[in-house]
Amino acid sequence: MQEKSEVNTDIPNSSKEEFWLTEYGPRNTAISLRVKYKLFEKKTPYQKIEIFDSYDYGRVMALDGFIMLTEKDEFIYHEMIAHVPLFTHPEPKHVLVIGGGDGGAVREILKHKSIEKVELVEIDEEVVKTSKIYFPEIASYLEDERVEINFQDGIEYVKFKHGVYDIILIDSPDPVGPAVGLFEESFYKNAFASLNDSGIIVAQSESPFIFPDLIKRVFSIFKKYFPIVHFYIANVPTYASGMISFVLGSRKFDPIKDFNPERVKSFVSTLKYYNEKVHLASFALPNFFINLLK
Amino acid sequence: MQEKSEVNTDIPNSSKEEFWLTEYGPRNTAISLRVKYKLFEKKTPYQKIEIFDSYDYGRVMALDGFIMLTEKDEFIYHEMIAHVPLFTHPEPKHVLVIGGGDGGAVREILKHKSIEKVELVEIDEEVVKTSKIYFPEIASYLEDERVEINFQDGIEYVKFKHGVYDIILIDSPDPVGPAVGLFEESFYKNAFASLNDSGIIVAQSESPFIFPDLIKRVFSIFKKYFPIVHFYIANVPTYASGMISFVLGSRKFDPIKDFNPERVKSFVSTLKYYNEKVHLASFALPNFFINLLK
Repeated sequence: MQEKSEVNTDIPNSSKEEFWLTEYGPRNTAISLRVKYKLFEKKTPYQKIEIFDSYDYGRVMALDGFIMLTEKDEFIYHEMIAHVPLFTHPEPKHVLVIGGGDGGAVREILKHKSIEKVELVEIDEEVVKTSKIYFPEIASYLEDERVEINFQDGIEYVKFKHGVYDIILIDSPDPVGPAVGLFEESFYKNAFASLNDSGIIVAQSESPFIFPDLIKRVFSIFKKYFPIVHFYIANVPTYASGMISFVLGSRKFDPIKDFNPERVKSFVSTLKYYNEKVHLASFALPNFFINLLK
Repeated sequence: MQEKSEVNTDIPNSSKEEFWLTEYGPRNTAISLRVKYKLFEKKTPYQKIEIFDSYDYGRVMALDGFIMLTEKDEFIYHEMIAHVPLFTHPEPKHVLVIGGGDGGAVREILKHKSIEKVELVEIDEEVVKTSKIYFPEIASYLEDERVEINFQDGIEYVKFKHGVYDIILIDSPDPVGPAVGLFEESFYKNAFASLNDSGIIVAQSESPFIFPDLIKRVFSIFKKYFPIVHFYIANVPTYASGMISFVLGSRKFDPIKDFNPERVKSFVSTLKYYNEKVHLASFALPNFFINLLK
């Protein structure tokens, strides 16, 4: 097998000016972006962080060889992980983000005027440091006075919080390396306990094409703890299979029945993907996905 | 630049058993599937046809290096190009398919009991021949007695048809090579004239991430000729950016207002992607797509 991420400098037939960042996914597939240079590389205690400058997707961050965000399409993932729960809850004030050290999810959360406090728990301080240098427009939102950053393992963090959050976002990378525990029941159970009585949790739950068994397992865990559980989907070009799913567990508010499209309208000028129709449409799952949940 | 499609036998660090089919897209991106072998290759007067056996996507057909279909995910494209217009029209009887020599769109069309005749116009007879050998379960639908196959240029074919079709599907490859003319106004104009008074046309219109200008141009053409024009989207893992769009032009029936979800219910057991919620959700475009149409 090839190393998970690399700049291939000797792809056959290519001139020496052609460098491709290639992400080898778990289903014998790969996605490649043509890049100009690698701007940064660091091995931290948790993972390898790399930053590339690409031709068509702007700057790119990869963690352990998996593309985490690109300047061109990061808005999709970040708008969808944040606004679906934040527009489901009628007045979100206190939000916890686990992962998300780039600041993209926090940027979207702060667009909601009701927000009083956002706690970000990122295991790897280097992700935040690197984002501040290479993605300053995204990471600058981490400087907002409503944001508290904790460099700690999210799995430990939620053990000591009870009934405090309106919303929790689990903005995790793929279930390999340091993020494996973020897909385990023991973690979810503590996270659920840290929500208040009308709390909502959203976790990225990977592509149904690539991780069908993970989706089944996460669904069975969420169903044990929440009266309302829904998956929703978004199209992200630089994620394997082009589709990402999210699982939403809610104590009280239903993301479809309790959704008020009027609230979204004043936001639309700040959003590039999410709108009130996209909110509802994202819950319309294809049959093969519905069948995974049976 | 590398050749558009190839089996890379000397990717660095890989053993000689690792072969990857790599599609280089137009935006400095590439998608790769790990393959076991190339089963077939032929240069026809129109294009290069290649068939591969892949590890996770079954058999794969590539035309001039672009992945056209894989056994694993072809259902998405074919269900979405066919059922959205066929469930918009209350009683589709006579359908024209331009392109689509693999038979996937025809298979979906024939699920509708009202269908009396399907005309397939495929410029390259070798596509049909190859599909019958390597995708027999898909291509076998071309043998149905309601199907008439014409090996001819669709651009010429529609010049001599007037007011006859309930539905036309333009199942074209990317707008390069022999398919360029299928994205031109002169072709569309003749195609529109071959629809009857309540006719509907759907054309695949590429990804908004990759071909935004094409989408704008196609939209301005369709608006000149149809009172009802909508784009809709689907997620296809093996197409560049993971998203494909379709443009629907209709003389009479609106795909949202005139859609009857009850009709879909009896079909659901035969469908892996499309359902009544997906039908409506596919018209909910992200803001960046809506902005292209302004």
